Amino acid sequence: MERTESTQDTTAFNMPDWMQIQFADQKREFNKRPTKIGRRSLSRSISQSSTDSYSSDSSDDETSPRDKQQKNSKGSSDFCVKNIKQAEFGRREIEIAEQEMPALMALRKRAQGEKPLAGAKIVGCTHITAQTAVLIETLGALGAQCRWAACNIYSTLNEVAAALAENGVAVFSWKGESEDDFWWCIDRCVNVEGWQPNMILDDGGDLTHWIYKKYPNMFKKIKGIVEESVTGVHRLYQLSKAGKLCVPAMNVNDSVTKQKFDNLYCCRESILDGLKRTTDMMFGGKQVVVCGYGEVGKGCCAALKAMGSIVYVTEIDPICALQACMDGFRLVKLNEVIRQVDIVITCTGNKNVVTREHLDRMKNGCIVCNMGHSNTEIDVASLRTPELTWERVRSQVDHVIWPDGKRMVLLAEGRLLNLSCSTVPTFVLSITATTQALALIELYNAPEGRYKQDVYLLPKKMDEYVASLHLPTFDAHLTELSDEQAKYLGLNKNGPFKPNYYRY
Amino acid sequence: MERTESTQDTTAFNMPDWMQIQFADQKREFNKRPTKIGRRSLSRSISQSSTDSYSSDSSDDETSPRDKQQKNSKGSSDFCVKNIKQAEFGRREIEIAEQEMPALMALRKRAQGEKPLAGAKIVGCTHITAQTAVLIETLGALGAQCRWAACNIYSTLNEVAAALAENGVAVFSWKGESEDDFWWCIDRCVNVEGWQPNMILDDGGDLTHWIYKKYPNMFKKIKGIVEESVTGVHRLYQLSKAGKLCVPAMNVNDSVTKQKFDNLYCCRESILDGLKRTTDMMFGGKQVVVCGYGEVGKGCCAALKAMGSIVYVTEIDPICALQACMDGFRLVKLNEVIRQVDIVITCTGNKNVVTREHLDRMKNGCIVCNMGHSNTEIDVASLRTPELTWERVRSQVDHVIWPDGKRMVLLAEGRLLNLSCSTVPTFVLSITATTQALALIELYNAPEGRYKQDVYLLPKKMDEYVASLHLPTFDAHLTELSDEQAKYLGLNKNGPFKPNYYRY
Amino acid sequence: MERTESTQDTTAFNMPDWMQIQFADQKREFNKRPTKIGRRSLSRSISQSSTDSYSSDSSDDETSPRDKQQKNSKGSSDFCVKNIKQAEFGRREIEIAEQEMPALMALRKRAQGEKPLAGAKIVGCTHITAQTAVLIETLGALGAQCRWAACNIYSTLNEVAAALAENGVAVFSWKGESEDDFWWCIDRCVNVEGWQPNMILDDGGDLTHWIYKKYPNMFKKIKGIVEESVTGVHRLYQLSKAGKLCVPAMNVNDSVTKQKFDNLYCCRESILDGLKRTTDMMFGGKQVVVCGYGEVGKGCCAALKAMGSIVYVTEIDPICALQACMDGFRLVKLNEVIRQVDIVITCTGNKNVVTREHLDRMKNGCIVCNMGHSNTEIDVASLRTPELTWERVRSQVDHVIWPDGKRMVLLAEGRLLNLSCSTVPTFVLSITATTQALALIELYNAPEGRYKQDVYLLPKKMDEYVASLHLPTFDAHLTELSDEQAKYLGLNKNGPFKPNYYRY
Amino acid sequence: MERTESTQDTTAFNMPDWMQIQFADQKREFNKRPTKIGRRSLSRSISQSSTDSYSSDSSDDETSPRDKQQKNSKGSSDFCVKNIKQAEFGRREIEIAEQEMPALMALRKRAQGEKPLAGAKIVGCTHITAQTAVLIETLGALGAQCRWAACNIYSTLNEVAAALAENGVAVFSWKGESEDDFWWCIDRCVNVEGWQPNMILDDGGDLTHWIYKKYPNMFKKIKGIVEESVTGVHRLYQLSKAGKLCVPAMNVNDSVTKQKFDNLYCCRESILDGLKRTTDMMFGGKQVVVCGYGEVGKGCCAALKAMGSIVYVTEIDPICALQACMDGFRLVKLNEVIRQVDIVITCTGNKNVVTREHLDRMKNGCIVCNMGHSNTEIDVASLRTPELTWERVRSQVDHVIWPDGKRMVLLAEGRLLNLSCSTVPTFVLSITATTQALALIELYNAPEGRYKQDVYLLPKKMDEYVASLHLPTFDAHLTELSDEQAKYLGLNKNGPFKPNYYRY
Repeated sequence: MERTESTQDTTAFNMPDWMQIQFADQKREFNKRPTKIGRRSLSRSISQSSTDSYSSDSSDDETSPRDKQQKNSKGSSDFCVKNIKQAEFGRREIEIAEQEMPALMALRKRAQGEKPLAGAKIVGCTHITAQTAVLIETLGALGAQCRWAACNIYSTLNEVAAALAENGVAVFSWKGESEDDFWWCIDRCVNVEGWQPNMILDDGGDLTHWIYKKYPNMFKKIKGIVEESVTGVHRLYQLSKAGKLCVPAMNVNDSVTKQKFDNLYCCRESILDGLKRTTDMMFGGKQVVVCGYGEVGKGCCAALKAMGSIVYVTEIDPICALQACMDGFRLVKLNEVIRQVDIVITCTGNKNVVTREHLDRMKNGCIVCNMGHSNTEIDVASLRTPELTWERVRSQVDHVIWPDGKRMVLLAEGRLLNLSCSTVPTFVLSITATTQALALIELYNAPEGRYKQDVYLLPKKMDEYVASLHLPTFDAHLTELSDEQAKYLGLNKNGPFKPNYYRY
Repeated sequence: MERTESTQDTTAFNMPDWMQIQFADQKREFNKRPTKIGRRSLSRSISQSSTDSYSSDSSDDETSPRDKQQKNSKGSSDFCVKNIKQAEFGRREIEIAEQEMPALMALRKRAQGEKPLAGAKIVGCTHITAQTAVLIETLGALGAQCRWAACNIYSTLNEVAAALAENGVAVFSWKGESEDDFWWCIDRCVNVEGWQPNMILDDGGDLTHWIYKKYPNMFKKIKGIVEESVTGVHRLYQLSKAGKLCVPAMNVNDSVTKQKFDNLYCCRESILDGLKRTTDMMFGGKQVVVCGYGEVGKGCCAALKAMGSIVYVTEIDPICALQACMDGFRLVKLNEVIRQVDIVITCTGNKNVVTREHLDRMKNGCIVCNMGHSNTEIDVASLRTPELTWERVRSQVDHVIWPDGKRMVLLAEGRLLNLSCSTVPTFVLSITATTQALALIELYNAPEGRYKQDVYLLPKKMDEYVASLHLPTFDAHLTELSDEQAKYLGLNKNGPFKPNYYRY
Repeated sequence: MERTESTQDTTAFNMPDWMQIQFADQKREFNKRPTKIGRRSLSRSISQSSTDSYSSDSSDDETSPRDKQQKNSKGSSDFCVKNIKQAEFGRREIEIAEQEMPALMALRKRAQGEKPLAGAKIVGCTHITAQTAVLIETLGALGAQCRWAACNIYSTLNEVAAALAENGVAVFSWKGESEDDFWWCIDRCVNVEGWQPNMILDDGGDLTHWIYKKYPNMFKKIKGIVEESVTGVHRLYQLSKAGKLCVPAMNVNDSVTKQKFDNLYCCRESILDGLKRTTDMMFGGKQVVVCGYGEVGKGCCAALKAMGSIVYVTEIDPICALQACMDGFRLVKLNEVIRQVDIVITCTGNKNVVTREHLDRMKNGCIVCNMGHSNTEIDVASLRTPELTWERVRSQVDHVIWPDGKRMVLLAEGRLLNLSCSTVPTFVLSITATTQALALIELYNAPEGRYKQDVYLLPKKMDEYVASLHLPTFDAHLTELSDEQAKYLGLNKNGPFKPNYYRY
Repeated sequence: MERTESTQDTTAFNMPDWMQIQFADQKREFNKRPTKIGRRSLSRSISQSSTDSYSSDSSDDETSPRDKQQKNSKGSSDFCVKNIKQAEFGRREIEIAEQEMPALMALRKRAQGEKPLAGAKIVGCTHITAQTAVLIETLGALGAQCRWAACNIYSTLNEVAAALAENGVAVFSWKGESEDDFWWCIDRCVNVEGWQPNMILDDGGDLTHWIYKKYPNMFKKIKGIVEESVTGVHRLYQLSKAGKLCVPAMNVNDSVTKQKFDNLYCCRESILDGLKRTTDMMFGGKQVVVCGYGEVGKGCCAALKAMGSIVYVTEIDPICALQACMDGFRLVKLNEVIRQVDIVITCTGNKNVVTREHLDRMKNGCIVCNMGHSNTEIDVASLRTPELTWERVRSQVDHVIWPDGKRMVLLAEGRLLNLSCSTVPTFVLSITATTQALALIELYNAPEGRYKQDVYLLPKKMDEYVASLHLPTFDAHLTELSDEQAKYLGLNKNGPFKPNYYRY
């Protein structure tokens, strides 16, 4: 894993002009926004949930999209979505999301002249939402041809997929795919006559896995893989260790902005949101144990402490443990507090952190949820025994009832609370999408030899660039180094500003 | 207003044995809870929203309840609810609420022997929810006969009303009453042959107003009024000033526990909840102005600051203003920051705090909401002009669009965000309900002369008792004064522990 | 005690023009300050400790001031101080303090025309510091004649006393008085031929006590007492209860600004300061128990929690206890945590809160200190037994050593940590001094009958006025009610803005 | 700089048995501590300031130590200190420090059998304090021979140096060395007949520099350099880049524990301490600008925000800037707020961050201080002009007075506030000293080829070990991975637990 940071010579690395951090202009542009933008200037992210009320998803149409004949208004049928007629509603969702993703829109504008992705043939596999649509259409605006599938059988917003299809993107995806549908969609993206991808954008590694398995020869033309998820990155490192990685890969998951913003800041808010929406509980005075004090755990702990909860932490890593101590949390083993806590939250990325033994000892009414990784942290399987009764009390909320009447409140059946029971702010999705776009541009344009068949982190300068694109949202004014100061610090005035090992 | 605290001689005031603060026993009882409680031991408040999914409210039945003939299983028809058949589901909701209101249940148990409300004939007018049902049935368990109407035409949970009716309470209330229905229901509670109320429990003052207007003679037999709302209390003080208050009244709204817990602690949580549920926005980095730094404003500011927002405060009162300064908020006039903020929150109890002029100057996407009092704080009426377009983007969320395309996001049309867009934790409702029950007991049992025709605050000792009943929820262990210490401080070991003017 | 708030009719109460809250002018004045002020415009409070380095206090002069013949430059010898020659240095200290007390200086300026204390003969007994000197000279500027003694035998700053004497104030006070000196000084203030006080400003009640005992007839001419301390106020209420209070008294201690600012905000800072200066300890991760959750306890808890300590709270009052819970502190009995905590802090106002039994069970290195009241809270006397060794390790820090080697770290021998081991910010002293001045003005000018022989709180309008005088320091801009709003709220636009029972 | 993390293969790296993280035993040992420890078991760090009161430093002896003939009790004269007779008092200071450095004492105990430094000849150049003495004597206990000089001409505690000399350490150092003395002392450590160092422990790089310059041949025998300071590390990287580094060097400054604990957590406390001790100011409501949002800036901002200050941040790095936004601080350029702030704090590591132009525009009474790096951040030199008057008002506090009377309060003449005006908690020093000891052990025992002529970070496993040694202080209980979990995560149960690029 240690190779990740080493091979890049970031000082030698030059970003094109349009990619310079802008110290002065940003503000000017931003200030103009309120008065300038036209009719569609929307505000906060409403795409995700508003969908429920306004879209006609629960249509009576039970035909599988694979069995339908659909054409978009330009006559193309190179796509497979639920219902192409939903395109207009989907377009509105995308337009709303565009307002919330100023960084990606700025990128479109700045890089449009250069078309840095001209010639790129990108095959992508991600959640299909309004925000990804903005990303996909940005890639198009920068010159790329895209074919796209969903990385999850449930997460596609059908009307957004329809809008993409209407706009000429070859999208194969709908909500409620079967396992077979899932792989069929991926295959339809890759296996096309007269078109071969030269870039991969993956979220979870399934697309990469499929090409490895079915079309290994494609990698000859592929310039690189951009991968977002923990799981996908893990697979890439394993391939790399085994010497089987045949193209450079960019680990977007561990970029600074992703780690700190998506995990720390986003979870600080979504833990409260997820708990409130599911249980309406009051946080003040509640005793909570948070398992794991990584970025996610730090976010959860900070939020709950601020709301007046009493928070205990468990950790396996002595450094994170010492941080928890200094941040004012008692570091305990789970079984020391399991009888007394009102809430148990897992954020470890580990498995079986909360065991049946722990669950047996919890007090009546204890809430158990997972903010960590997939659905392994709580041993939910161990609760599927005959002596326990499950009672669904509302969407995503189960009561598991012991023979003596004790009830444990399980949220989202142990799956990720923040994905299942709260929404992800568009702002965070914007950071991730911008990072993905830049990673694609970098890998596609990198001179021969800059990247080998290895897993890389995004060059720091690009990470900084992503951050700078998001500052105007906060009316934040960056200070520019004077020549004298830059020299004193031995830095380029445009960054990168920190050594690679800097921890933020 | 100054008479409020003056007439009570709290040291002379003796509470019955069952009302003593328990230092030792509480813990024992509490520790037994987890293992002891039976099958229905539920956890967090799920009554309010779970209702939506499970109840069959949106029934096809369009007949007005006033035109229906309904009988409960015991043959009584002295009630008027939407559908008596929903009683079973409503009972389940009430049972769930009982689990969340341990203080009221403890009160039932402790006072049941004495029946301190034996002979009480209480007419009530409140929201009709599972939590009020627990209160009403507690009053019954303590010996009272109750007749009940709703204080709001929308807020009745029909199945809860049905369960109360089935259980013999004379309840007149349904969701979606007309104005005429509203007064008809109240009248049906009061105007009964052979039954005349001797106690009033009111929320908003409408019931009191009705009796004043229609049946002034009833006050001869009424021992007192217990009023919860700001508005109702205000009316009572005006009556008192005008010399027209003809019975003692208890101002429950200004009791310590109500003020600090309902306003400060509850709003600290509900501001986040309300904003998230309606807008999915991210709090970090947002600029917010909070108008008013009373308890509600303090709660909103603390929560948003903790989530990483930058908060400005406006105030008219120099003392609250200085508190805002010391708590780390810039004190500004609204027009100083109106152009730059992302969110405007009103918590003043005043009117026209946010004017059309302010609204015109806000930036694109600014969110405006009210946490204060009724719907007067934001001048919403001023936005109903032809040049502005209103667009409902989701439930409780409107975009108001200026001719230049600027959008302002208005939540709950300027009504209370925390009532409209978030839920109130049962714990807070428990505090209020317990206070109401004790106020009724006190007024009903007070010896001749303790209370005159004036407005009173709950005796501090009872306020302390309410608080003590809620400590076991937090496994909190109160320290008891030694005899020597009590003597040193000049206090009774069972309280009251503070002078009346103490501010907490 | 309940009479305190009752008799005032604040709405009828009219403040003179110069005492109106200024909404607009304040800002202008403040903004001019930086450039306008002259040479001596100093910044932060440096009087207290800078004294140590620059004054020649530890002079070789061992003669008692009572045996010296001293004259000021105008030839007067109606004073008794350590050394009149230190006047110049003292004057510089006073000038520095003036810069930090803008409210008092503003009062001087605004009220100077009216001389609201013309004819007042004030006898005072307080700590003699630069800040009190600013108060005393303000009283003089407003028309009063003052005679002054110290309320504490150690706290006098000799050079400040000298400066006052040089400026014509009849001051009798020096650092290191004997008990006999103490009463002699007080007597010299009161017992003068041809001068009889008509106002008393007391801090601790000793002056009041002396007059009661020795010169009861003086009360015939005395218009009122202003008392600042808890102890002094307690004595006054006892006199009042016993029917022995023969003049109106103003309880300055319980005014809002005093309670919230002096106790909550000041202690929030001084607990950290006191602990750091004495022990250099790190707060992060430390386990702390705070006894008492009144304003002082709230301040201590908030500060330590913010610095990463884990804080437990003990309480006797269920309401404060419930607040501690909602603020995120575990409520325990002292003996539940005494073995594990690193720091014990008392803030109760009670006695023997920490007993020898507790002290015996503390762990090695535990720090024990008192932020509460006098020196009764920790049973220090119980540690004066032969088996325990005391070792003074630095000023105000003792190690008490058990036979097994365990060391307990006792700060300030159990006296007030914030007085002994940290400094009080001038800002807080400014609030108190301004309140005292206004209380004197009010009592002196009140029409016959407004105040009876009872103990009163400062009228709220004056409390608000004190606060308003301190807002410019923070560049804080108060919002003014519109006529329409004032009418809607039933308030006068200049206050008072809250009912008397409002808790802030 | 990128090479730093790359060459280590931490998974292959094996730590000796005594260096395993202990999951179970720690607790047991810790619990025994309170009762077991003997007479000298002291508590909080009192060494540094207590010194002032008890030591006889300001002795009349003006003879230079270089001109004195001194022998310790064993007859050795291979040292040069102020006064060998102060050894006993110094020993007491060291013993107190030992109580505060349990990790180093545990290391002594665990590694004493193996003597991992047997044969090591360490030359050191650090501050000479009680805490370094504990480090030096620990190195001795592990088998090393040490010769030591001071890295700063002022910072030596003479009695500690005496105690070291008495104990046989060849120490050359006293408080108040001249520049010539400074290099003479270093030379006496290095230039000895019959003794040649094989390890260097440096703080600032002066010792390393001296050997490079005078005795380059020595590097043939030297196995490595351990360097703590930013400056020293910077020099090493420059040597490395220039290809002139001739031995492996360990960058202790950038180890996780050092960065996060020394910078973030320690500065969070010392900014408050430093400001209070120098100015007695109140933090509540003050407007502060913090320049730089690295670890130090983050600590300062968090502390001041928690105390009720309003904090603005300046940054040059967009990532740190975005963090500041998400943490709730307005990101500004310095000149946007310079007129309005009460305090300016620099934490950039840069130079001329606060210029004369900024200083000219500050408001009267503004406090300016530096928490960053050396004394370059504030352009203090620009204030040495004739029209400005400097007035020293107390130790470390200067008023700089403009012709119009405006005063600016400069702390520590722009040098580091936390070093000059507050104390560093022993706990933090303990972390650093333990890290240094482990770095020496690692470099000394590393097999041929593990380290090349390059600059390295401490292997993560050792960083984790240092952290684990400090957990017992907080009664913190680490969770151990089960075999199954370790396998699932692909981790060794004893660590390292994170990839090298993990940011904490």
